[in-house]
Amino acid sequence: MASQIEVCLTPDLLPHFDLKDKIVVVIDILRATSCITTALASGVKSIIPVREVEECKALQQKGYLAAAERGGKKVEGFDLDNSPFSYQNPDLKGKTIAMTTSNGTLAIDLSKNVAKEVLIGSFLNQRTLCNYLQKKEDKILLFCAGWKGKENMEDTFFAGALIDDLSNMNVELENDGAFIAKAVYHVGRNQYKKFLRKSSHYQRLIGFGLEKDIDFCFTANQYDVLPYLKGNEIVL
Amino acid sequence: MASQIEVCLTPDLLPHFDLKDKIVVVIDILRATSCITTALASGVKSIIPVREVEECKALQQKGYLAAAERGGKKVEGFDLDNSPFSYQNPDLKGKTIAMTTSNGTLAIDLSKNVAKEVLIGSFLNQRTLCNYLQKKEDKILLFCAGWKGKENMEDTFFAGALIDDLSNMNVELENDGAFIAKAVYHVGRNQYKKFLRKSSHYQRLIGFGLEKDIDFCFTANQYDVLPYLKGNEIVL
Repeated sequence: MASQIEVCLTPDLLPHFDLKDKIVVVIDILRATSCITTALASGVKSIIPVREVEECKALQQKGYLAAAERGGKKVEGFDLDNSPFSYQNPDLKGKTIAMTTSNGTLAIDLSKNVAKEVLIGSFLNQRTLCNYLQKKEDKILLFCAGWKGKENMEDTFFAGALIDDLSNMNVELENDGAFIAKAVYHVGRNQYKKFLRKSSHYQRLIGFGLEKDIDFCFTANQYDVLPYLKGNEIVL
Repeated sequence: MASQIEVCLTPDLLPHFDLKDKIVVVIDILRATSCITTALASGVKSIIPVREVEECKALQQKGYLAAAERGGKKVEGFDLDNSPFSYQNPDLKGKTIAMTTSNGTLAIDLSKNVAKEVLIGSFLNQRTLCNYLQKKEDKILLFCAGWKGKENMEDTFFAGALIDDLSNMNVELENDGAFIAKAVYHVGRNQYKKFLRKSSHYQRLIGFGLEKDIDFCFTANQYDVLPYLKGNEIVL
């Protein structure tokens, strides 16, 4: 099937895109969309993504489990951080978790109520996501969450990887961001874990001792799930 | 000499950068910085870059020659368009020209009075620009003018080409944008004129019959000049 793909390199550039009638894939490899994928694959019932820490705190006070990350670290007073391993805990099965992160939940919130569908993309569910996209005829926007409004390498690389995966379709790259992402993927693909070490956020998380998190987030096809936004909640 | 390089992919992302004490290289390959380079190399005394068409019109009414481009086309009532060939006219020797373009003059204006130096970069003066940068120890920001706030391929590619040229220095890439630009250059370098045909602005200008302009703007080292901003005017 034919399809058109655009890449938005950071939320700061989203005003240039029309999300209406499009499938938006939110990408925040380190680590929000990797965490959400892990959580739902591990039995969490749903995630409520919110933009602000205060909104997340309010949901915690209503009785929800709540996860808040800023600057790569857990915000004090919350139940969960932004490590995918935290979401593999069997005690979380069947639970709904409110979540706010520096970049990923912002990108999800910006897409809410505007896009036709909002999907969660990560290396962890790459194949499942691609299989789904290959069946669709809608226009696709790959929306990189970046870092505080700036582009980043790992999200751009993964957008390029998805474009490569979809290249067997009659897919048209619709903006320069898509060609740029494809080029970044092309350069890094053979040794991508090494290539992505140049990413500023990789360096930041390494500084926090999070090598294991990064290595897991960079591992393809761990889960056969496709989280998507349904109303205000991310579900399977 | 050691130096640090960042790349800003579009003016919309400039708020994330601190220009103070930096050398800013403004890049608008198609076509503002190519025109400015051509003009000064051809004997034009100086260019006054302005953001708005109205400002440019006001300078025209004061007696300056004036160039205005929007959406790739000349604005009615102005003396010059945004084609490099227009600036090779011997009648322009010694003249000062007021200029406004969709992207390039905006990027120059955003850098004015903030950066330590503002230089004009294009394929046409690539070697001269690199020779200059290689002698400096200041931090460098390669500022891509993009297209109406969006990133574009040709400016990103040229930023990557400059990074490659400077790789014999002990240069540090300071942001993910610099690694992304380097990757784009790496993919396209062997056939860059063909590679850059994918650019949306290339396609736009081809639609206006401007193949010759594009081919000239993509030609390296035509002029041994380095235009820079001095007060409100670009001079040699």
